[in-house]
Amino acid sequence: MTTTSAADMSDLAIASRAVLEPIAVVARRAGIPEEALEPYGRYKAKVDTDLLPSTGTKLGKVVLVSAMSPTPAGEGKSTVTVGLGDALAATGTKTMIALREPSLGPIFGMKGGATGGGYSQVLPMDEINMHFTGDFHAITSANNLLMALVDNHLHQGNALGIDPRRITFRRVIDMNDRALRNIVIGLGGPTEGVPRETGFDITVASEVMAVFCLATGLADLRARLAKMTIGYTYDKTPVTVGDLGAEGAMTMLLKEAVKPNLVQSMAGTPALIHGGPFANIAHGCNSVIATNTARSLADVVVTEAGFGADLGAEKFMDIKARFSGAHPDAVVLVATVRALKMHGGVAKDALKTENVQAVRDGLANLSRHARNIRKFGIQPVVAINKFTLDTDAELSVVTSWAAANGIECAVADVWGQGPAGGADLAQAVLRAIEAPGDFAPLYDLDLGIEGKILTVVREIYGGADVEYSAAAKRMLKQIHENGWDNLPVCMAKTQYSFSDDPTLLGAPEGFTLQVRDLIPKTGAGFIVAVTGAIMTMPGLPKAPAAMRMDVDEHGQAVGLF
Amino acid sequence: MTTTSAADMSDLAIASRAVLEPIAVVARRAGIPEEALEPYGRYKAKVDTDLLPSTGTKLGKVVLVSAMSPTPAGEGKSTVTVGLGDALAATGTKTMIALREPSLGPIFGMKGGATGGGYSQVLPMDEINMHFTGDFHAITSANNLLMALVDNHLHQGNALGIDPRRITFRRVIDMNDRALRNIVIGLGGPTEGVPRETGFDITVASEVMAVFCLATGLADLRARLAKMTIGYTYDKTPVTVGDLGAEGAMTMLLKEAVKPNLVQSMAGTPALIHGGPFANIAHGCNSVIATNTARSLADVVVTEAGFGADLGAEKFMDIKARFSGAHPDAVVLVATVRALKMHGGVAKDALKTENVQAVRDGLANLSRHARNIRKFGIQPVVAINKFTLDTDAELSVVTSWAAANGIECAVADVWGQGPAGGADLAQAVLRAIEAPGDFAPLYDLDLGIEGKILTVVREIYGGADVEYSAAAKRMLKQIHENGWDNLPVCMAKTQYSFSDDPTLLGAPEGFTLQVRDLIPKTGAGFIVAVTGAIMTMPGLPKAPAAMRMDVDEHGQAVGLF
Repeated sequence: MTTTSAADMSDLAIASRAVLEPIAVVARRAGIPEEALEPYGRYKAKVDTDLLPSTGTKLGKVVLVSAMSPTPAGEGKSTVTVGLGDALAATGTKTMIALREPSLGPIFGMKGGATGGGYSQVLPMDEINMHFTGDFHAITSANNLLMALVDNHLHQGNALGIDPRRITFRRVIDMNDRALRNIVIGLGGPTEGVPRETGFDITVASEVMAVFCLATGLADLRARLAKMTIGYTYDKTPVTVGDLGAEGAMTMLLKEAVKPNLVQSMAGTPALIHGGPFANIAHGCNSVIATNTARSLADVVVTEAGFGADLGAEKFMDIKARFSGAHPDAVVLVATVRALKMHGGVAKDALKTENVQAVRDGLANLSRHARNIRKFGIQPVVAINKFTLDTDAELSVVTSWAAANGIECAVADVWGQGPAGGADLAQAVLRAIEAPGDFAPLYDLDLGIEGKILTVVREIYGGADVEYSAAAKRMLKQIHENGWDNLPVCMAKTQYSFSDDPTLLGAPEGFTLQVRDLIPKTGAGFIVAVTGAIMTMPGLPKAPAAMRMDVDEHGQAVGLF
Repeated sequence: MTTTSAADMSDLAIASRAVLEPIAVVARRAGIPEEALEPYGRYKAKVDTDLLPSTGTKLGKVVLVSAMSPTPAGEGKSTVTVGLGDALAATGTKTMIALREPSLGPIFGMKGGATGGGYSQVLPMDEINMHFTGDFHAITSANNLLMALVDNHLHQGNALGIDPRRITFRRVIDMNDRALRNIVIGLGGPTEGVPRETGFDITVASEVMAVFCLATGLADLRARLAKMTIGYTYDKTPVTVGDLGAEGAMTMLLKEAVKPNLVQSMAGTPALIHGGPFANIAHGCNSVIATNTARSLADVVVTEAGFGADLGAEKFMDIKARFSGAHPDAVVLVATVRALKMHGGVAKDALKTENVQAVRDGLANLSRHARNIRKFGIQPVVAINKFTLDTDAELSVVTSWAAANGIECAVADVWGQGPAGGADLAQAVLRAIEAPGDFAPLYDLDLGIEGKILTVVREIYGGADVEYSAAAKRMLKQIHENGWDNLPVCMAKTQYSFSDDPTLLGAPEGFTLQVRDLIPKTGAGFIVAVTGAIMTMPGLPKAPAAMRMDVDEHGQAVGLF
């Protein structure tokens, strides 16, 4: 590996200098037999999980990487996930990394990739960020085949009596395309369909994506697709994909996509990258199939959940772990001095100046996240993701606080140093996963929707109460009538605050959470509680990142990051 | 190979019984070095053409498979293309097949796949028909990134002064989705984009697809994308992709897709399947990159053009061959007894009854196609694609006519018998390509748009004159003002008749062709002349084929065909 400083180079430049091993070599190291490997190019492969050796009941431990409430720039969860995986592998622990697939749309807007950064990246970063093995395209196709069948059903006589005004499912596209948020389709007269209002969401917001990521296999995927609600009849009865008979063709479109994708980190650690649902209107972590496949192959699996721990970790426990069995043995809370200062009251333009007191004040936020993790019966491990401007005095505020509170804590510089920068964190994690765990979800499913939301608000967010809009109250009634009370809740809330007000930093208390709407996702198997404005179709900025992207004379991507 | 009769089994059932060779073995036989092979699963691979050995000026001969004017059921061009390739390979000739990729949308409607049939198929048929290596998804993404950038440009201040009412480029989706034909986007107020009328086309109708298939390499692709016209300013100046600066990011999305895809036929013949533009508003044949790659590897390349020879072959000569150098050394005209009877005046429900006189009368259609091929300096070869109900008396009408007119002709039963059923056809083709050729396009580019259209109508269609609608006349003026007169024309006409009236069968004469509209495709580099109604977004039928599709308990596709 080159020793050029990460600070001098873009992620893409660092990634292009890395020497990759053929994917068959990585697979062999991961214990994947050749017959189960379906290569996609030289450095990517799908894994046919039916052809993996049976491991019986022996499954690897799960380390979930989550974070304190983030700044808008993000705290580097993916980078820490990759770096921690590499550092664990460097100790001789048989390790796999499990990550979400990046969404194409935001790449052309402002966001970086979801493949880590610096010397802690999964590779080949340009291919993973572009079309990868086509999973998101398959999900887009399955979603849009369904909607073509729905509108064709309306056009061909509407035997099911679907109310065109009450179709809740939308088409999707893996692109940031503001102009498709609110559209009218079916114009042009009787041969051109039935006019109605609708819109496109971005692919990662599709319920098909959530179903894809929660399914335990192809049969479960098919059954969940059939249970998705696409809308309501004129007499308000839910209409499912199964009523239309579309689940077979949708499953056929997804049959290759459900196989998890194997790649490698820059240090050569095997990584499964598979699925990537939104972390607001969905649960925000990679597929159950990938996590369970990694557990069958490795002793430790390092995986990630979106946003801060109030959202990502809570949903991991109450939705993904509840149904898949893959509960974490430790939760890493990524913290940064920058985020601590922000939660300590420092304005954005002063975050680069040393401010020990602000770091100390910001610990209120981190502390509540650590407390929350313990409520699931799991020990938290704090990972301070080091930035070049952090001072020793600032860093030691955090390590001293952790020591005083009996919380495992380590400073990690995996971005700048790769696996060596994560050695202390790896040791902290290895200690934490040896401690006997006592995992339980936060709430029982029979609490009722309001009871479950109130439990999350009080126990995790630190709030006092919940208020429902008139629309949300109507939906509560409808959910009850349709027998959906026993589904878990999926909170759609700002990631910047424990509350539903993004400006309320630190560890706010006593607030009332406003539930604006409830959206049943009957295939994914949860009820989304919408607080505040949730964007399911991002827009492009004035100067989109796409404008600097190109290929060079060797056919290589440039300007990607 | 199993000897079960093809008539007893579906194409999918026959395909699933075939034993495939690993794609690396197929590549080796094709002369593709291992370093140029990028496997996609076990039986598909992309070929990195930059890593192929240089062949200098020695390039294989091209056999173009076209057809007489077809019946709505199609005459089996793809099946004959695959079977002829296999039969040529069986003679010891180093052969490659080059085909179009199937479009996903029509598969869920009514159409079969584009992978041949019976014992002349390319494999794995379910994967080729589903997502294959993701090329069409990449083209969809590139097209829709462009449109997101266009609408974002309007929203962010419209510095180029694009008239929202004059944006001619549309979004695409690889789905038959009638309700997206005519839509209004950008609704919802000032934060949600600029409202305007537009619609979605199916992906194969995208100009990006046409550009993809005509480009000689990545640099040419990028240059052609930049030249595409997306609409006009308020003062009617064309706005190109280059004006927006979107060609770099679009090319990045297409950089892997431009590598041609290697698969095998059921008999093990190497096949490149790459690109697939519409045959009406585009030129309807696989990519120039695939054809030229195949020519660099094999002594004979068998390839296909869409619809009948009046459309597919004419465009192959006047558009693809003119710019790529890959002109045919022989053109196979696929004829069927069924189609001949239809052109001989037999009604659809009587086509199964022997009718020697109708076959004789229908020869007028086939005869004109054969004459047309000679106008390009190329010898035609008639392939009678045998159906089980054809009688010897009917077949001998065609063979006698061909013998009397000095036209190579053979009966082929590659559907039922595989390569053995194409042995005679292979010998006829080998004789034809040995004859010295004298290829020239039909018209010179400096004839003017009207002159070029009139030449095609008189020389190929047998018509007398051309009439232009008021809209087409306005476009003629605009084309002249924009300096696009020297582009070739791409005729969008019904495939069922030489004329623009699908009910005018046989070999009509003296008719006047109505040009309804002219559509400049400045990136692809042709002017589409629209005659009659051209559907760029198909709809689904009352009982879509999707309803019978599913996966079985082993994860295998069922109900695909």
